[in-house]
Amino acid sequence: MGKVLVLYDTETGHTKKMAEYVAKGASKFPVEVRIKSVEEASKEDILWCDGIAVGSPTYLGVMSWRMKKFWDSIVDLWGKIDGKIGCAFSSSGGWGGGNEVACMSILTMLMNYGFLVFGVTDYTGDKFTLHYGAVCAGEPREKEEIKACEVLGERLAQWVLVYVDGKKEYLKNIKNQ
Amino acid sequence: MGKVLVLYDTETGHTKKMAEYVAKGASKFPVEVRIKSVEEASKEDILWCDGIAVGSPTYLGVMSWRMKKFWDSIVDLWGKIDGKIGCAFSSSGGWGGGNEVACMSILTMLMNYGFLVFGVTDYTGDKFTLHYGAVCAGEPREKEEIKACEVLGERLAQWVLVYVDGKKEYLKNIKNQ
Amino acid sequence: MGKVLVLYDTETGHTKKMAEYVAKGASKFPVEVRIKSVEEASKEDILWCDGIAVGSPTYLGVMSWRMKKFWDSIVDLWGKIDGKIGCAFSSSGGWGGGNEVACMSILTMLMNYGFLVFGVTDYTGDKFTLHYGAVCAGEPREKEEIKACEVLGERLAQWVLVYVDGKKEYLKNIKNQ
Amino acid sequence: MGKVLVLYDTETGHTKKMAEYVAKGASKFPVEVRIKSVEEASKEDILWCDGIAVGSPTYLGVMSWRMKKFWDSIVDLWGKIDGKIGCAFSSSGGWGGGNEVACMSILTMLMNYGFLVFGVTDYTGDKFTLHYGAVCAGEPREKEEIKACEVLGERLAQWVLVYVDGKKEYLKNIKNQ
Repeated sequence: MGKVLVLYDTETGHTKKMAEYVAKGASKFPVEVRIKSVEEASKEDILWCDGIAVGSPTYLGVMSWRMKKFWDSIVDLWGKIDGKIGCAFSSSGGWGGGNEVACMSILTMLMNYGFLVFGVTDYTGDKFTLHYGAVCAGEPREKEEIKACEVLGERLAQWVLVYVDGKKEYLKNIKNQ
Repeated sequence: MGKVLVLYDTETGHTKKMAEYVAKGASKFPVEVRIKSVEEASKEDILWCDGIAVGSPTYLGVMSWRMKKFWDSIVDLWGKIDGKIGCAFSSSGGWGGGNEVACMSILTMLMNYGFLVFGVTDYTGDKFTLHYGAVCAGEPREKEEIKACEVLGERLAQWVLVYVDGKKEYLKNIKNQ
Repeated sequence: MGKVLVLYDTETGHTKKMAEYVAKGASKFPVEVRIKSVEEASKEDILWCDGIAVGSPTYLGVMSWRMKKFWDSIVDLWGKIDGKIGCAFSSSGGWGGGNEVACMSILTMLMNYGFLVFGVTDYTGDKFTLHYGAVCAGEPREKEEIKACEVLGERLAQWVLVYVDGKKEYLKNIKNQ
Repeated sequence: MGKVLVLYDTETGHTKKMAEYVAKGASKFPVEVRIKSVEEASKEDILWCDGIAVGSPTYLGVMSWRMKKFWDSIVDLWGKIDGKIGCAFSSSGGWGGGNEVACMSILTMLMNYGFLVFGVTDYTGDKFTLHYGAVCAGEPREKEEIKACEVLGERLAQWVLVYVDGKKEYLKNIKNQ
């Protein structure tokens, strides 16, 4: 059974809320889901998962130092965990404030670990999407913001099912395929 | 007198509208302002300007091929125009759709030409800013979106005044300095 | 049988040589391999493939306008081809000249199309790797440069075999798994 | 008199060596130069400088957590120090290993603080340049690697002289101007 980890750092609680919606989205599918803050998570969680969503507040357009520290600290896993499936989410102080760019910093790091990373083409509302990961300005409140987080988790679960578990029937859940 | 060029590509007219607001912002200050579409602009415009704002629709998270073609085509200027001041703007189909990332592709290109590039720290409304350039989802309609375009032009004019023209008195226009 | 497309733009022939090595690498595995220049390729090639390696000269730290034009032009496929596996390669004028950054512009674009993108953790020589795609300064001449191109093609074929074809036995070919 | 800060994190000493060469380059010009490790530096150093070169080992394609922590920790300065001139340097385990991408993460962060950031167009040897900051694979040993660090410091000093100090005569030092 596919295993999905939602790993987040949070300061104000906004990114934590996003993480909960991501986990909720993933849980709609037959995969095991763990949600952990960067303080709770350990190397074992990374080894355990097939797919991972990593979320951080948008600090200065780059993931928070705490999230970076976590990944810098488990670098002995590097080169041994290639091929996991990864994605990102981030909450910034405002639109145009770097949440997409912060997602890219997370995806850059996950690619460095040999992961396959993705964004989502689906729109979750009027003029709202998650091409490089789920993004919010502040707390996820609007319907389309919440749905973006959920869709990220859904898509992560779907790719794990389709690619890792080899359950091609879940391709039908992916838009327009 | 400082010279500011606003260079844009547009398909639906959204980025053109952004360009007009950027030019309007710059025009509040004692600099010469030119606004040109990528089809109208020539090498001479690039040589002319001290500061430049480059705008493109967010096509696939990267500036449009037409904008890229313009800069690829004038590459004989490369290495001869270092030190201009540059910034970016982009309109995407939706939030989370890559407008920040497309701005980064423009800034990457301008840095390659030896330009000094910047974003703006100011907020232009509730949860709305332009840290990597002015961004919109679709047409600039909301007050904060329009203001973000204007503030980009203002700041570009201010940096040109302060740094290129040496008029330090304009530092007072820059937030909290 | 898995299908791999190597799509490249070239001006001096350097990126074409890289493309040939990438194709050679992919051909070591039981997948069908097509190699096409951006002028020869069509929408049909994109529909055909399961995995794709996209290469461009490093023009100004961003893929060439010709490569961008190709992808901008087939945008009616957008939202219908999610889930392909993608990677990048680029040749710059020099080290530090933007080949990694240009690979990132390609990966950004492929993610926008809903693809899963990857780099490779393997080293191909002393102080030489391809974490964000295969990179060269000029023509691929040195053993480690040539090998980086080949390993990119190998890994692309391997991910297609493992994930798209469901042949988990090829996981053993992936370093340290 | 213009003030230049070289701020670095280091683990193996490679990035420290780069920092020393950057500082040496800056010191060729009439500016004050401070060199500090991220452990020694304080908020006061950031307030003090007009221009800054920030260097980090390439950990996972993003600056080290220690460097990020420094900037996350002084965020009360944010919005009050716009307009400084910034650049980046990074040492990776290998070519293609993310040193350019890590420089981009640093430049992203500095732009968020409202800084004007730049790369250098000059080549420092055969097929060697520093378009997004000075980069090395391992220790800076080769002539062109050492020179790239020095040229980064020189250019930083030159931009501080030309733009902050208003000494336009230093434009002649900038290639082909």
